[in-house]
Amino acid sequence: MSEGKKKLVEAITAQEVDFTQWYTDICLKAELVDYSSVKGFMVMRPYGYAIWENIQKDLDARFKATGHENVAMPMLITESLLKKEGELVEGFAPEVAWVTSGGSNPLEERLCVRPTSETLFSDHFAHVLHSWRDLPMKYNQWCSVVRWEKTTRPFLRTREFWWQEGHTIHETAAEAEAETEQQLNCYADFCQNDLCIPVLKGRKTDKEKFAGAEATYTIEAMMKDGKALQSGTSHYFGDKFSKAYDVTFAGRDNKLQHPYQTSWGSSTRLIGAIIMTHGDDEGLILPPAIAPFQVVIVPIAAHKPGVSEKAEELAARISKFARVKLDNSDNSPGWKFSQWEMKGVPLRLEIGPKDMEKNQCVLVRRDTREKVFVSLDELETAIPAQLEALAKNIYQRALENREARTFAAHNWEEVKELAAGTTGFIKAMWCGDLACEEKMKAEADLSSRCMPFEQEQLSDVCPCCGKPAKKMVVWGKAY
Amino acid sequence: MSEGKKKLVEAITAQEVDFTQWYTDICLKAELVDYSSVKGFMVMRPYGYAIWENIQKDLDARFKATGHENVAMPMLITESLLKKEGELVEGFAPEVAWVTSGGSNPLEERLCVRPTSETLFSDHFAHVLHSWRDLPMKYNQWCSVVRWEKTTRPFLRTREFWWQEGHTIHETAAEAEAETEQQLNCYADFCQNDLCIPVLKGRKTDKEKFAGAEATYTIEAMMKDGKALQSGTSHYFGDKFSKAYDVTFAGRDNKLQHPYQTSWGSSTRLIGAIIMTHGDDEGLILPPAIAPFQVVIVPIAAHKPGVSEKAEELAARISKFARVKLDNSDNSPGWKFSQWEMKGVPLRLEIGPKDMEKNQCVLVRRDTREKVFVSLDELETAIPAQLEALAKNIYQRALENREARTFAAHNWEEVKELAAGTTGFIKAMWCGDLACEEKMKAEADLSSRCMPFEQEQLSDVCPCCGKPAKKMVVWGKAY
Repeated sequence: MSEGKKKLVEAITAQEVDFTQWYTDICLKAELVDYSSVKGFMVMRPYGYAIWENIQKDLDARFKATGHENVAMPMLITESLLKKEGELVEGFAPEVAWVTSGGSNPLEERLCVRPTSETLFSDHFAHVLHSWRDLPMKYNQWCSVVRWEKTTRPFLRTREFWWQEGHTIHETAAEAEAETEQQLNCYADFCQNDLCIPVLKGRKTDKEKFAGAEATYTIEAMMKDGKALQSGTSHYFGDKFSKAYDVTFAGRDNKLQHPYQTSWGSSTRLIGAIIMTHGDDEGLILPPAIAPFQVVIVPIAAHKPGVSEKAEELAARISKFARVKLDNSDNSPGWKFSQWEMKGVPLRLEIGPKDMEKNQCVLVRRDTREKVFVSLDELETAIPAQLEALAKNIYQRALENREARTFAAHNWEEVKELAAGTTGFIKAMWCGDLACEEKMKAEADLSSRCMPFEQEQLSDVCPCCGKPAKKMVVWGKAY
Repeated sequence: MSEGKKKLVEAITAQEVDFTQWYTDICLKAELVDYSSVKGFMVMRPYGYAIWENIQKDLDARFKATGHENVAMPMLITESLLKKEGELVEGFAPEVAWVTSGGSNPLEERLCVRPTSETLFSDHFAHVLHSWRDLPMKYNQWCSVVRWEKTTRPFLRTREFWWQEGHTIHETAAEAEAETEQQLNCYADFCQNDLCIPVLKGRKTDKEKFAGAEATYTIEAMMKDGKALQSGTSHYFGDKFSKAYDVTFAGRDNKLQHPYQTSWGSSTRLIGAIIMTHGDDEGLILPPAIAPFQVVIVPIAAHKPGVSEKAEELAARISKFARVKLDNSDNSPGWKFSQWEMKGVPLRLEIGPKDMEKNQCVLVRRDTREKVFVSLDELETAIPAQLEALAKNIYQRALENREARTFAAHNWEEVKELAAGTTGFIKAMWCGDLACEEKMKAEADLSSRCMPFEQEQLSDVCPCCGKPAKKMVVWGKAY
């Protein structure tokens, strides 16, 4: 191990020692974020932002393929507009930032920085919707929002975060419900196929649902440490906002009606999910679909004749089918190895004089760190194959972790025992009462993650109160 | 002219009657924007936002091709951070929005919504810059900013606007100056080649330069009505911000030094420039490079056998080389013609039973409204050729308008006469004194647009004061 490498690796806390500190170390050492002078606000650095750009590009194409259009709403909301829908304002008012003066003058009415934009979209829909022929309106916006969180951590909980928020209105309740489901499936598919993160799909309990929603659906991922991360949500509003904001249209019968509404969002939290699902003690491991660089080329003995040229030639060739970075800096190969491992590049390609003699190179996968020698004639097939194998493997590892940490509790003793003994998903039946949900929190420190779409009948009664069970709930500790 | 068409056309004010009202009509009737409930803030609707997305995609690729990386900075700035550089804060403090409470608590220090982000970038550079090896750092961010304008107009002047702001630091002044120039040229090239808008490149006078900059360079476009629109600016800061924000690095001589800094920005104003450079009394005319749809297909007698199918087949074929929209709504062809003319789609393709018999279609250019019959076998060449011809023609028209409205004033009488008699660019010599610049404003209602890079020697003296002239300035009335 070269000195450069040792130095870098020493700088990260091991996951087993302190998972939280490991996470923070990754965020900083992989150069994803910087803390800003504004408390609780983060800076996304080029490497972190490049991951976000790839997530955006992928999700945006999925949204557009199903007929959604992007728009931009104001970043500020008047207090009176915010207050038109009671539950939403109750849910968000305690955590918004208020603008009270513009220029040198105090404002007549204060404005909040958007914590979410249902109010603005509803107000806009009221302006532009006239007839059933205008429906559905399926909009999305990419922006940042502000919620005044008390404790913050990069990507997971910051006072400002970047996200997309989809907002749609439909002629019928059934169409709006179908949209809610479609978008949840879109998130789940993206997480599983592109981020290599298995997710549990289900419905939130009333306690955990979005303020103002009739129903909130969620995808829940499990991090390496067994904690849950809510990774995307999709909400069905019925006509509650339409009524509160006076959104109407002339229906097929020419009568004035209220449309049915949805919203759905995913955010830079997904980067937190990637880090904590796949990362190890050497650093990040990035799913190929969103890695800024899928392959890094490290020339060995780059001063020897022809090596640099060969590395450049390979970079040009690989750039035609993969995102490739040639590291021709004057750092040592060992230093480069550990730097790019820290940054989670899926595949490393080493090329030196000996390899050139044999018309081959070395490929090293980030997940297994396995070395294989590959003929230079076969890069076009070998590299995509290795990337695919890595993607499958890290998904499989994550799935195994989740399965190993998912437990069924059949009674209160098992709930308590499991909650005390491990961190993971605990499946248990539930009567549907808020009191029992609160007891789970108070006495077992568990919050409901979701009522999974795939239900099991673990027992007939709620382990908290003994009353008849209505649903199986997955409980856990969450980020 | 069909009734539908008449109705739509009647709804727009003619340019000659009231250019300002015509502009507002276009913004609303072409469905680019909506006014929001938040005074001075606009909503970008799908069609307007799609134009912005195309602008973003094009500019972003240009920035990346020259080694720039995207990042995201906080949207809020602490008052103390803002105040570290005196000129900047003087320039912007009167027009920022202040956040004074977060959640239910008043903040210890108020925060402004970013009006521009030099302060945040400088603060970040101070964290991450260590050695000359880290330089240059060439960053960009896409975001919205807030400036508390008194009078607002969609795209041209709104309290929130969307833009990109590039921020770079360099080892030497020469490199930073070269960056400033490169980015100005990037904007000019983009405007001329992709937006078909001729621009004048030059340097701003001290009075008009960016607060805190050593030098501001600008591209100035001329609108149809002869008024100027500043369409992109590039600033050289020297080491002023580096010093104010304590940004240092260890130089090649191992001594601590301050880097040299630039910033450059372009915004949704560009959409205003497109509207007012190319639009006519029928609506928008969009340059093909950024048009959401480059071709719209309108089936004629769509109920006749095979017409709909043929239109769909053509749409699929054209989608391989152009952005195409098939309008198969149940509106009349006449209504569709005027709707898509309003929205400025460069090329309309009409296909009906008679055309099908002859294996041809009709292409109608938006700029000239010329009809040509084209064989269906030749679409792959005819459509790109028509789009290119349109792009050339609208550029040429804009250039001719600018030339026809550009005048040289050799003395004070000519300045007064030209300023009173027309709206356009007035070239005149200038001694360099602020007093004369202020006299131009007070007595001829002209502001300095720029000192063009291409100088002419119109006379030896300043027409205001008779003192020796230093520079030729282009004067005008500006949006």
